Amino acid sequence: MANYFSSKFKLGILGGGQLGKMLLYNTRKFDIYTCVLEISNDAPCKIASDEFHLGDLMNYDAVYNFGKQVDILTIEIENVNVDALETLEKEGIKVYPSSKTLRTIQNKAKQKLFYVDKGLPTAPFSRFAYTSEIKDAINHGGITLPFVWKCAQFGYDGTGVKIVKSITDLEGLPNVECITENLVPFKNELAVIVARNPSGETKTYPVVEMEFHPEANQVEYVICPARINDTIAEKAKDIALRTSKAFNHVGLLAVEMFQTQDDTILINEVAPRPHNSGHQTIEASYTSQFEQHIRAILDLPLGRTDSKVGGVMVNLVGAEGHTGHVVYKNIEAIMKMDGVTPHIYGKKQTRPFRKMGHVTIVNEDLNEARKVAEQVKKTIKVISE
Amino acid sequence: MANYFSSKFKLGILGGGQLGKMLLYNTRKFDIYTCVLEISNDAPCKIASDEFHLGDLMNYDAVYNFGKQVDILTIEIENVNVDALETLEKEGIKVYPSSKTLRTIQNKAKQKLFYVDKGLPTAPFSRFAYTSEIKDAINHGGITLPFVWKCAQFGYDGTGVKIVKSITDLEGLPNVECITENLVPFKNELAVIVARNPSGETKTYPVVEMEFHPEANQVEYVICPARINDTIAEKAKDIALRTSKAFNHVGLLAVEMFQTQDDTILINEVAPRPHNSGHQTIEASYTSQFEQHIRAILDLPLGRTDSKVGGVMVNLVGAEGHTGHVVYKNIEAIMKMDGVTPHIYGKKQTRPFRKMGHVTIVNEDLNEARKVAEQVKKTIKVISE
Repeated sequence: MANYFSSKFKLGILGGGQLGKMLLYNTRKFDIYTCVLEISNDAPCKIASDEFHLGDLMNYDAVYNFGKQVDILTIEIENVNVDALETLEKEGIKVYPSSKTLRTIQNKAKQKLFYVDKGLPTAPFSRFAYTSEIKDAINHGGITLPFVWKCAQFGYDGTGVKIVKSITDLEGLPNVECITENLVPFKNELAVIVARNPSGETKTYPVVEMEFHPEANQVEYVICPARINDTIAEKAKDIALRTSKAFNHVGLLAVEMFQTQDDTILINEVAPRPHNSGHQTIEASYTSQFEQHIRAILDLPLGRTDSKVGGVMVNLVGAEGHTGHVVYKNIEAIMKMDGVTPHIYGKKQTRPFRKMGHVTIVNEDLNEARKVAEQVKKTIKVISE
Repeated sequence: MANYFSSKFKLGILGGGQLGKMLLYNTRKFDIYTCVLEISNDAPCKIASDEFHLGDLMNYDAVYNFGKQVDILTIEIENVNVDALETLEKEGIKVYPSSKTLRTIQNKAKQKLFYVDKGLPTAPFSRFAYTSEIKDAINHGGITLPFVWKCAQFGYDGTGVKIVKSITDLEGLPNVECITENLVPFKNELAVIVARNPSGETKTYPVVEMEFHPEANQVEYVICPARINDTIAEKAKDIALRTSKAFNHVGLLAVEMFQTQDDTILINEVAPRPHNSGHQTIEASYTSQFEQHIRAILDLPLGRTDSKVGGVMVNLVGAEGHTGHVVYKNIEAIMKMDGVTPHIYGKKQTRPFRKMGHVTIVNEDLNEARKVAEQVKKTIKVISE
């Protein structure tokens, strides 16, 4: 049996941002030796990792040479060089998620085709080699307005996605490979995180509900458990589980879904790593998503995924009109409220809508947690000096 | 209002061991800049602190020069140079716990006299400048066998304490300042952790129960909440709170107590920092003792101290007959059990009874947690390669 604890074993993490930072709480807890590859010398993982390597995650040589030094390699961000990962896999390094999974997920068109191929429900879509082809498709009746435009490669957290209501909305969009998706009216946006280890053991977390900010296309509240009925919850968990198995996935898979007006569940997209919707697990769950990801990729038994208490998370994003060295105004006031824990990611500079941290509110009573979360949102302001 | 988060503020920690390591999870969570002073270059806090300084904590200059560089200074171990702390306080550095408190606590005789002085209940005792004086005291009827002998300065976790049943038991004890305490028959060993901030806000944690290993004088199970009636619990919490206030304490104070056969509560000793009995708070409480200590010393509002779930902690100590590079045998098997999280401190070498880590078991049902904890103890073995 492989010995990971206090041993010569090396875990590699591609990416040194806040997700990696939270993974490191757990590698430190287990005394697992960690190497991090990251482009920025200021990144959160610079301290708390055993080795911090500078390099471009999209560069073949950087990723390959880094990966050769570790026993198991994982990611905290999808934008990594997949060819290098494929070579590493052939050379015997364990890479989770696999290069095959990443190749599929990195490209939204491939991702959608994968769901269709595997019989997983998702909104109807069309694929285009170039945005410019869309105008023709509309004019010939191939697709109808309105729809959601998404670039195929490298969108993140709201960018690279646009709701197109008229042809003029296409102006200014990059002329790249993209998809257009039917705009499906939905009741709720949900997410389920599934953990799976190489032995095939799986565990799903309770369904979470995500309330979105209309303009910035960022989550406002993540609520766990989602306030939906059990039938819907089971449906969502089942689809998420099937998705994880379809990918033959190892590690965490966060599956974002829509609950449509007629209670159909459709997959929106997935993230093969710890996810924003899972941050509340740190305080609310028996096993935090970060500890779970470590357990999964090391083929350790998965931890219990029940919630101990209700959890609501709000993101801390830079306030509009503020750019400069960050100040967390009224943070002491929110720390007075029951069950409130802020997480400050460590970025020194704020700008409008920049993700600077999050706050989790836990309570035995989820409604109480939700009320306190509103107070938190009204109170704390992420501004500049 | 002072701004600690993502700012120029510096928190200093004297000591870089596993308590400091767990404090650092929370300074990282809050993006608070930390400096650690520690004698060993291998210490756990070497990574995860912003600055790691090597130096002897008992050396005046080392502690003084280190303390001058920070805004607030705290400890994770009592064995530090108190004269340096006193100078730093006079020069405007905030030191928590205060030098006055540490001076009292560092010397067991002073500590006992403090309790008597403040009307806090503790077992009757006698104080001796030298162990050699005890024999005369016994012969002249000044004290009676059996009693507990404790050296006054620098005992830790079972050493410097001996139960003396006959005069021959005194042989081999160091000839130092010491106390002898009446051996009071007790039902339970309890502990309460009290948090107090400079503004005077206080919060007490639920009472924990400590089951001890007969020979090694180390805790076997820490159970929270203690399985005692509410009247006893309130008494214990009240005494702990009064003790914290008597010290005008800032930060955490762990108050260890006995519940005697006639339900009197007597203070055994205190620790002015996070404590082994509080490790279960990481998973079981609304606010971990480590986050709480940070809140307290920064004069932030204290966090909720209720338990979310029942918690039992077992220490991971080196097995007898094993010395060398550590192997955590069967750790995968315990990680299969519900609600189990191991914490591996990071010491590479094991030896008999060395504290190598702990395991916390949480469950809505405390009895279930206790059963699983027994399984954990039977299963995991801390051995050498």
